[in-house]
Amino acid sequence: MPPLVPRWPAWLFCWRAACIQGASVRQRMWVGPSRIPGLGGPRGAWGTSPLAPRGSCLASSRAPEVTLTPERYPVRRLPFSVVSEDDLAALEQVVPGRVITDPEELEAPNLDWLRTVRGSSKVLLRPRTTQEVAHILRYCHERNLAVNPQGGNTGMVGGSTPVFDEIILSTALMNQVLSFHDVSGVLVCQAGCVLEALSQYVEERGFIMPLDLGAKGSCHIGGNVATNAGGLRFLRYGSLRGTVLGLEVVLADGAVLNCLTSLRKDNTGYDLKQLFIGSEGTLGVITAVSILCPPKPSAVNVAFLGCPGFAEVLQTFRTCRAMLGEILSAFEFMDAECMKLVRLHLGLSCPVQESPFYVLIEMAGSGPGHDAEKLGCFLEQVLDSGLVTDGTLGSDERRIKMLWALRERITEALSRDGYVYKYDLSLPLDRLYDLVGDLRARLGPSAKHVVGYGHLGDGNLHLNVTAETFSASLLGALEPYVYEWTAGQRGSVSAEHGLGFKKKDVLGYSKPPEALQLMRQLKALLDPKGILNPYKMLPTHA
Amino acid sequence: MPPLVPRWPAWLFCWRAACIQGASVRQRMWVGPSRIPGLGGPRGAWGTSPLAPRGSCLASSRAPEVTLTPERYPVRRLPFSVVSEDDLAALEQVVPGRVITDPEELEAPNLDWLRTVRGSSKVLLRPRTTQEVAHILRYCHERNLAVNPQGGNTGMVGGSTPVFDEIILSTALMNQVLSFHDVSGVLVCQAGCVLEALSQYVEERGFIMPLDLGAKGSCHIGGNVATNAGGLRFLRYGSLRGTVLGLEVVLADGAVLNCLTSLRKDNTGYDLKQLFIGSEGTLGVITAVSILCPPKPSAVNVAFLGCPGFAEVLQTFRTCRAMLGEILSAFEFMDAECMKLVRLHLGLSCPVQESPFYVLIEMAGSGPGHDAEKLGCFLEQVLDSGLVTDGTLGSDERRIKMLWALRERITEALSRDGYVYKYDLSLPLDRLYDLVGDLRARLGPSAKHVVGYGHLGDGNLHLNVTAETFSASLLGALEPYVYEWTAGQRGSVSAEHGLGFKKKDVLGYSKPPEALQLMRQLKALLDPKGILNPYKMLPTHA
Repeated sequence: MPPLVPRWPAWLFCWRAACIQGASVRQRMWVGPSRIPGLGGPRGAWGTSPLAPRGSCLASSRAPEVTLTPERYPVRRLPFSVVSEDDLAALEQVVPGRVITDPEELEAPNLDWLRTVRGSSKVLLRPRTTQEVAHILRYCHERNLAVNPQGGNTGMVGGSTPVFDEIILSTALMNQVLSFHDVSGVLVCQAGCVLEALSQYVEERGFIMPLDLGAKGSCHIGGNVATNAGGLRFLRYGSLRGTVLGLEVVLADGAVLNCLTSLRKDNTGYDLKQLFIGSEGTLGVITAVSILCPPKPSAVNVAFLGCPGFAEVLQTFRTCRAMLGEILSAFEFMDAECMKLVRLHLGLSCPVQESPFYVLIEMAGSGPGHDAEKLGCFLEQVLDSGLVTDGTLGSDERRIKMLWALRERITEALSRDGYVYKYDLSLPLDRLYDLVGDLRARLGPSAKHVVGYGHLGDGNLHLNVTAETFSASLLGALEPYVYEWTAGQRGSVSAEHGLGFKKKDVLGYSKPPEALQLMRQLKALLDPKGILNPYKMLPTHA
Repeated sequence: MPPLVPRWPAWLFCWRAACIQGASVRQRMWVGPSRIPGLGGPRGAWGTSPLAPRGSCLASSRAPEVTLTPERYPVRRLPFSVVSEDDLAALEQVVPGRVITDPEELEAPNLDWLRTVRGSSKVLLRPRTTQEVAHILRYCHERNLAVNPQGGNTGMVGGSTPVFDEIILSTALMNQVLSFHDVSGVLVCQAGCVLEALSQYVEERGFIMPLDLGAKGSCHIGGNVATNAGGLRFLRYGSLRGTVLGLEVVLADGAVLNCLTSLRKDNTGYDLKQLFIGSEGTLGVITAVSILCPPKPSAVNVAFLGCPGFAEVLQTFRTCRAMLGEILSAFEFMDAECMKLVRLHLGLSCPVQESPFYVLIEMAGSGPGHDAEKLGCFLEQVLDSGLVTDGTLGSDERRIKMLWALRERITEALSRDGYVYKYDLSLPLDRLYDLVGDLRARLGPSAKHVVGYGHLGDGNLHLNVTAETFSASLLGALEPYVYEWTAGQRGSVSAEHGLGFKKKDVLGYSKPPEALQLMRQLKALLDPKGILNPYKMLPTHA
C-alpha cells in the first residue's frame, strides 16, 4: 500500500501503514480493577474505594488514617441540626433500605480520593428517582439538615466529601439512560450515570460524549456538570455550557425545576440551567442531564512528540492548529519531570527520545486518508523546522491507549510520589510554563518534584508540587504566591477543577468583589438556609 | 486539471474546477446602502433607518405611521418617573452633547425595523464609556427612570424599542476594539461594535467571528450577546454560551460587574456572565464582550440543492453530517414558497430546477482538495439515491454571496409581501415542517403566504405567515394554536429571537411555572426597581 504522505521521516520507524486506517475512539487503560459498572450499578463509585478506578495501589485499609478536615483546616460547623433517630426513620420512609449508616460503608464517601480531606457524615442516602431526591431535600430543608450531594467522588478540591456531618446524598443509583436520539445525538440520562458507561452506550450508537476525563471510570455525569468539568475534549467540543442542553434540578426546598429540554436552541427566558452548571452542588442537586453528543469520528490518530523547549511547544501548537484545523481534537503537554514520575512510579517507558517537553496531539476526523495526509504534512513541517526532535504515532486502539496513558496517568504517578500540592491554572499561553521554573528556584530542595503539564490548547496548566509529607512551611512558600502570580497574569486560580472546599478562599484572586457579592446573593436566593454543600465554593469570610 | 471526484454528475454543468480552490469566507450582499460603519461609527444603526441595512425599500418618510405599541397591545405604563428638565440637565453632565431629544432623531430608535412596535421615548443617550453607562444607570436608578438599552435595533420581537417613554440607552458610540490576541483568537471589544465590522477586523487577522447573521451590517455585538443570537454558524461553532469568554456589565444600580476575562476555562465561582447572555437587557447592560474567534477556514464551498420532499431534506442532512463531518458549517433549508417570494419581491432567480424544497449547505475546512473530495462523494451519494434532484455549487466569493442571498433575504422578501406574523420555533427534526402544511390548511385564503425555512441543522424553523394587513382574526387563528402545537412537541416557542415585548406572554409554553418563578426572583434580585427594559421578557401576569 503506497504511503499517502509524500515523505515519511526516517525516524518514525514505529509508524505503521495502519495509521491511515480508521481506529475507534480510544478507551483508556485502568490499572485498577477493570470495573465498568453498567450505567452505574448498585455498587457506585462510593461503594468501592474511589482510588481503585484511578489505579492507585493505596488500599484504604493499609493507608494511614487521614486527618479530619476540621482538624487540619480552620473551619467551624454551622448551626445545622444533627441527624436524629427520628430523622433516620423518616428518611427510611423516603428511600426504604437505602439509608446507609454502617460506619465501614461510610468510610469511602467521607474521604476524597486524594486522601486530603475527610468528613464525619453518619448517614448516606441512595435515592433512585428525582421524586425521592425532592422528598429528601424537602425534609432536610424543613429540619435544617445540611446535605452533601455526591457523584463519583472524584473531585480534586474536596467539593464532593462532607466537611462535618452533612448527610451524603449519593446519585449512584440514579443511573438510567432516559432517552437517546440517534439522529440528533441528544442523550438524556439520570445524574448518576458513570461517564465511561455513557461513552460506551453512545459509541455503540455512532456517537461520542462531548467530554472525556481521566476519572471517567468513576465520575458521574451529574458531578461532571455540577463542576463544569473540562477534560480532554474541551479543545474540540467546547464547554459543557454549550453542550448541555437541559437539566433537571431539585432546589434546596425540594422543588423540582424541570428544564430538561432536548433542543439545541431555546431562548425562552433566562437560561436557568447555567446557574447549576459549575455550581458544585451549592445551588441545587442535578438529577438529570440532557447533553448533545457529537458523531463518532471515523478516524483517530495520536502523535506523541518530543520538543526541545517550551517555546517550541507553543510554536508546535500554532503550527498544528493552522495545519490540522478542524480535525485537531486534543493538544496536551507534559514536561520531563512528569515523564520521570510515570516511569518511576508506574513503570511506563518513554516512547520517544528523552526531551525537555512532550506533546500529545489527537486528531479525530471523518476521512482517514485525508487526516493521515494532513498529519503527514504537519509532521514534516515541525520536524524540518526543528520544533520537534522525535515522535511516534498511534492509530490503533492499543497504541492510542498506550500513548494516552503517559499523559493521563501523571496524576496517579504524582499521588504515589508523596503529598501533592495541586494547582489548576488558566494562564496566557506565552506565560503558561514560567511559573514552573520560577517555583523550582523558589522552593529548592524543600519540594521533591515540581511538575507542569496540562491542556495546552485550552491555556490550562496543571502545576503540581510533591513532598514526602504535608508541610505547613512548604504550603506557606506556595500560597498565596501561586495565586498572586496567577492574578498578576489575569489568569484563573481554578481553570476546571472548581473551588470546592480547598480553594474556596482564593476565589477573590480571579473575581472582583462585585462578583463575589452577586454570588452570595444568588446563593441566598436559591438556598436561603445554606443547607446545600455548605463550606464549599464561596469564601468563608464576607 | 483532472477532477478530484471520481465522477462529476452531468447535470452539474455549472460546477467549476475552481470549486476546489480556497475561497475566502463570504460577505453577504446588502441591497440597501453599502454601509460598513467602521466598528460602529458616529452614525450607529439607530442614526439611519434600521430598515436600510436590511435592504427594505420602505423609507420611513413614505411608509404609513406605525401604531403606538400601547394602542395595539394591552399594556399599562408602570409608575416610573417621567424625565424632567432637571433630569436632562443632569444627564447632559454625564454625556455632554450626547443627550438626544430631537423628535426627528428619535423616530427611528422608537420603532422596530419590522414596523410592528413603536414607543414614545423623548430622550436617547449615547455614552462612550462604561463609566458613563454606570453614571447614567446610577442616576436613573435613584430617580426611578426606566431605561431601554439599544444596540443595532435589529431584533425580531420588539425587545430593543421602548414601549412607553423609557430612556433609550444606545451603545452606538461604544464601538472600540479593546484587544485582539492573534494566537488565541480572543477578541475583546465594546458592546456597540457592529458585527460585520468585527468580522472584517478579525478576518484581516486570520480569524472569523463565531456567529453570523443576516443583520450583521447593523446589529451590535452587545445586542447579539444580550439576545443570545444564534444565526448561521451555530451548527459549527455552537452557542454564544460557549464562545463568549467574558462580559463587562453595568447593573441596574450602576455597579460595574467586570467579568471580562479572556480565559477559555475559568471555574472560579458561579459563571455570572451567563445570567446576562440572553437576558435581553433586563438584568444589566452589557458594555464589553470577550469572545473566542475560530481560525478562518482556508476553503469555503457552498452547495445549493433541490429536494423532492421534506423527508429527502432530512435524509440529505443525515447523509451530509455523516459524510462531511467536521467541515460542515451550515445546513439551511427553504420551501418553494420562499423561493417564489424572493423571486417576486427581490428579482432573484432560482439557480436550480424548481423543487418543493431547497437546501443550502456550507462547508468550511482547512484542506481545499480534501474538502472538495468529500463534497464530491457526498453529492454523488445524494444524487444517486434520489435525495437531491438538482444542484449547483459556489466556491468563489461572488457565487457564494449569490447563493447565500437566496436564503438570507427571505426575511426581506416577506416584509415586502405585507404584514408578517413571525414564529421562530425549535422542534424535533422529524416534525419540523409539519406545522407549515397544517397551517396552510387551517388558514386557507385568509393568509397570503405560509412559508417555512430556517436552520435545519439546529432544529430551528422560521415559520412566517403574510397577509395584506394586520388582522386580529388571522392572529386569533394563529395564536395560541402555533404555541400549543409547539408545546405539544416539547419544542421552544422562541428558538433564537428571544421574547422581547411581543413574545413575553408565551414563555409558559416552553418553561414550567417553577422556572418562571425563579426568573422573576432573579429579575427582582438584579433589578429590584424593574427599571431595565421593562415590559420585556417576563410575562405580564404573575
